[in-house]
Amino acid sequence: MSNDRNITHQDFTVTTENRESLLGQRGCVIWLTGLSGAGKSTIAEAVEKELNTRGKLTFILDGDNLREGLCSDLRFTDTDREENLRRVAETSKLFADAGVICLSAFISPSVDSRQHAIKVIGENRMFLIHVSTPLATCESRDTKGLYQKARNGEIINFTGIDSEYVDPVDPNLSLDTSEKCIDDCVKEIIQMLEDNGRLKG
Amino acid sequence: MSNDRNITHQDFTVTTENRESLLGQRGCVIWLTGLSGAGKSTIAEAVEKELNTRGKLTFILDGDNLREGLCSDLRFTDTDREENLRRVAETSKLFADAGVICLSAFISPSVDSRQHAIKVIGENRMFLIHVSTPLATCESRDTKGLYQKARNGEIINFTGIDSEYVDPVDPNLSLDTSEKCIDDCVKEIIQMLEDNGRLKG
Repeated sequence: MSNDRNITHQDFTVTTENRESLLGQRGCVIWLTGLSGAGKSTIAEAVEKELNTRGKLTFILDGDNLREGLCSDLRFTDTDREENLRRVAETSKLFADAGVICLSAFISPSVDSRQHAIKVIGENRMFLIHVSTPLATCESRDTKGLYQKARNGEIINFTGIDSEYVDPVDPNLSLDTSEKCIDDCVKEIIQMLEDNGRLKG
Repeated sequence: MSNDRNITHQDFTVTTENRESLLGQRGCVIWLTGLSGAGKSTIAEAVEKELNTRGKLTFILDGDNLREGLCSDLRFTDTDREENLRRVAETSKLFADAGVICLSAFISPSVDSRQHAIKVIGENRMFLIHVSTPLATCESRDTKGLYQKARNGEIINFTGIDSEYVDPVDPNLSLDTSEKCIDDCVKEIIQMLEDNGRLKG
């Protein structure tokens, strides 16, 4: 007697390719990794704005916004952060399957979590962008006041302070917003999508 | 000292309305509820096929497929089934926010789980469709062989056998596939979307 079922995977008539030719683009995931305050969401937003003016369909998955909904049951322990990123990877995959250009902006500090995302989404349609702005710059910006709290010991497990961020070894792009303006970051990402044939169906 | 953070909700420049005008449609969720074998996925697939030929962007969220990915950590206990539907509701909401017509086909046996979905997605853009095919018909079809297993006691908590299905009181549509062909079910759903102005941007 079991509480589990055999799961019957179902393939539907309308495919990702059908959706992509409808949209005139190819579904993919632009995964932005980097410290808090590095500029991940800012870049995601600026890329989305440019793609929207070009008539492309995008969607942003963002740490804070998902924490209010899909991942509202999770906290910030190591296990929960891992589960958070697992769900983000799975959700990003669904958006790519739908033909959408999905921008996923998450600190995602470990090699394992990013590798897992690549495995789930598929390496041919996931672009890993390292927003490599140095800690000192991120901390001086302290957009959300979180670095100060982490330094004061008011929050723990904060990436860059008492929790490790491991740089990606071989990202598709590396963008340091202390050296490069947002417009240039956007141009590099758009160029990358064009070179990869993602902006036509 | 806390392991939690203040979550800073972020609104982005490109809105759901921008995406909808790009797509020439309005994002929504068609939530199909009913017994295993009632015809939920079959209807979802046929509606998607028709909408695709009309140039509309759709995506199907389906019980079995999500169980392989986003919800692969969950089993079939009452608590896990509830969490499964919570995640489905949140994911459906994201697709509606992206401007997509999302078809979510889940047994969703309880009033609470469906009410929760309506609350998360918004009642003005969630359409509850009761696929009301009677148990006897579903069991005689037994597409996945699960009713037989449930009758044999090989699986437990199976809706309609040893777990309750509560009929929706006030669904947007009620479709019994033992009396109505799939084409007619599709027509009724498309008409409902047209009447609601969902098929133009």
